[in-house]
Amino acid sequence: MKTLKTQVAIIGAGPSGLLLGQLLHNAGIETLILERQAPDYVLGRIRAGVLEQGMVDLLRQAGVSQRMDAEGLVHEGFELALNGRLQHIDLKSLTNGKTVMIYGQTEVTRDLMAAREQAGAITLYEAHNVQPRDLKGERPWLTFEHQGQQVRLECDYIAGCDGFHGVARQSIPGDVLKTFERVYPFGWLGILADTPPVHEELVYAKHPRGFALCSMRSPSRSRYYLQVPAEETPDAWSDQRFWDELKARLPEELAAQLVTGPSIEKSIAPLRSFVVEPMQYGRLFLLGDAAHIVPPTGAKGLNLAASDVSTLFTILCKVYREGRVELLEKYSQICLRRIWKAERFSWWMTSMLHQFPEADGFSQRIAQSELEYFVESEAGRKTIAENYVGLPYEAIE
Amino acid sequence: MKTLKTQVAIIGAGPSGLLLGQLLHNAGIETLILERQAPDYVLGRIRAGVLEQGMVDLLRQAGVSQRMDAEGLVHEGFELALNGRLQHIDLKSLTNGKTVMIYGQTEVTRDLMAAREQAGAITLYEAHNVQPRDLKGERPWLTFEHQGQQVRLECDYIAGCDGFHGVARQSIPGDVLKTFERVYPFGWLGILADTPPVHEELVYAKHPRGFALCSMRSPSRSRYYLQVPAEETPDAWSDQRFWDELKARLPEELAAQLVTGPSIEKSIAPLRSFVVEPMQYGRLFLLGDAAHIVPPTGAKGLNLAASDVSTLFTILCKVYREGRVELLEKYSQICLRRIWKAERFSWWMTSMLHQFPEADGFSQRIAQSELEYFVESEAGRKTIAENYVGLPYEAIE
Repeated sequence: MKTLKTQVAIIGAGPSGLLLGQLLHNAGIETLILERQAPDYVLGRIRAGVLEQGMVDLLRQAGVSQRMDAEGLVHEGFELALNGRLQHIDLKSLTNGKTVMIYGQTEVTRDLMAAREQAGAITLYEAHNVQPRDLKGERPWLTFEHQGQQVRLECDYIAGCDGFHGVARQSIPGDVLKTFERVYPFGWLGILADTPPVHEELVYAKHPRGFALCSMRSPSRSRYYLQVPAEETPDAWSDQRFWDELKARLPEELAAQLVTGPSIEKSIAPLRSFVVEPMQYGRLFLLGDAAHIVPPTGAKGLNLAASDVSTLFTILCKVYREGRVELLEKYSQICLRRIWKAERFSWWMTSMLHQFPEADGFSQRIAQSELEYFVESEAGRKTIAENYVGLPYEAIE
Repeated sequence: MKTLKTQVAIIGAGPSGLLLGQLLHNAGIETLILERQAPDYVLGRIRAGVLEQGMVDLLRQAGVSQRMDAEGLVHEGFELALNGRLQHIDLKSLTNGKTVMIYGQTEVTRDLMAAREQAGAITLYEAHNVQPRDLKGERPWLTFEHQGQQVRLECDYIAGCDGFHGVARQSIPGDVLKTFERVYPFGWLGILADTPPVHEELVYAKHPRGFALCSMRSPSRSRYYLQVPAEETPDAWSDQRFWDELKARLPEELAAQLVTGPSIEKSIAPLRSFVVEPMQYGRLFLLGDAAHIVPPTGAKGLNLAASDVSTLFTILCKVYREGRVELLEKYSQICLRRIWKAERFSWWMTSMLHQFPEADGFSQRIAQSELEYFVESEAGRKTIAENYVGLPYEAIE
């Protein structure tokens, strides 16, 4: 068996694993990333596209922001379409100048891959059967298969950035973890199309027929979503049916301007809230989707992964440079404070904007009044805006 | 059968019926109030004690504020006790100067009764078997029994201020009304005691053992509440047990200062959210508890009745003085906009602060995060404060 050594072993070469790797590399801490898939598969996943200020700052700090700063779209607000009328949420004025950046997760991943390659740091793609071991010991290690070889990787710490279905969380004994979960009775049918976005800002539309979201990747690439029943399949949705349904859910002024075209991707994602506590076990730390899932309403998924990365990066720097090993024990607790607030916001946006087939009349009226109140009240709009641009990262002293 | 005539017949001599009567009387519009109970019974009901700025202003406008202004306690804030720590909600600074007035509903009623007597306006107490009739006609009338006589009362309009169990709402055909309801799986056990309040401001305490509220009627009369299971009876609660349980739910610093004493009233109230739509039928208009109930968390019940009174009073003035009869049709719609926002706030405060026996882990964490976020964020605190002091009354043009 071949043996490798590193300081921090990272499982998963998605944006959070790569970003953590880049930050640690820049700080002189050695990492090795293990990824189950090939690079092209990783880049083929169409995911989020709204980056909070905190994540933008982190990408800049990591030195991988050049293309984002050139090509990303800074959005100073978004629209809520309620009862056929657009209500503007002016993020910038409501948060003393904060904004969000529209830049696809795929592009973030591509930039991070390039930076890692340029830095000469190692990512082993198509690493199979990864098994973290001795997590409670001083010297954890992992085994995996790579290019037909059995490999042993020895390290100080393991960062589990391998997503909801990954091995990292599954390596923690079940009785250690407490699970919190909510499954929503619907999914999002999303399409990507090379058409100009219907509106210069994102539009979140609540409609009796169901929620719709008009998003984008660039001035010439649109991303649209429709709330559909959980059991729906993309096959049931021709492009024509999608565009017709989207128009029916948008205010007339927008529907009239919608430019349609052939979809270049079409898929359905279930909506789920999920958190495990704690997010660590011995020398294994969970980040991003490995520990928590939010429904996509509010665009918090990737951004939460970034704040986990920031927390673990800051702690590891203090551990390696200052010997602050006691901080390691606080990782989960520090992350969870911010995560639960983002879970709360994502749950709230989802609850407010979607149609719930089982909702009684009282719940429907409450949701309607809540949304009306929060949009009419300046304080209410501020709560939406400050959560949307992202609550501050927790301080680590 | 004896026949009486008036312009506006008011069913119910509680605070909303009396306040509407006083305002109309001052405006030169004649009223006659029918009340099922005797005056002492009406005054014996221990109810709310927190008056919003809007209700305070309305009582001043009605000319019945002299004693309230002398004896009422102006509160500029309240306390939330969360995880054993007090978190101050500074109503005055968060709302640009608005406050609430602590003055018991019983005292409001007493002042209004005295003013009505002084004005020489008629209240018929112990009026039995009140029956509103011909509500859809031009000249509605009521029949009732009073001092052994059958009486017919002819009028222009009927104001139903007779509470949740009253005849007014029941006079509207069932298929006209849509009902929205939520029953909570707990009640409030309340006691009144002639002891100094434990704190100068109200304290809303969330605790794993259940919610508690420290309120007051005056500097020497306290009102305390405990969340108890819905099926509980007051008999099961000796004064000693009540005080012991209250202390267990308060932060230590407060529990140590609590002055106990014999209770002079002890009762359990169920918690319910309830709204009917519309709040009118022909020439009958529902006000206050006749049309809507809120759980007491947030102290909105009496205040909502006052805003209905303000709305109907304003409309009737415009009808009698300017012939604006088209406004009558808008009464329900105008009231419901504000009512649903107060229903939302009362539901939210109730949901945040109580223990729900059936809540799953996710819901509990969301409630905890929601409360933490709203207390930590200035915008969040503003949403609590502006709802607590009362959202503005709807304009009637």
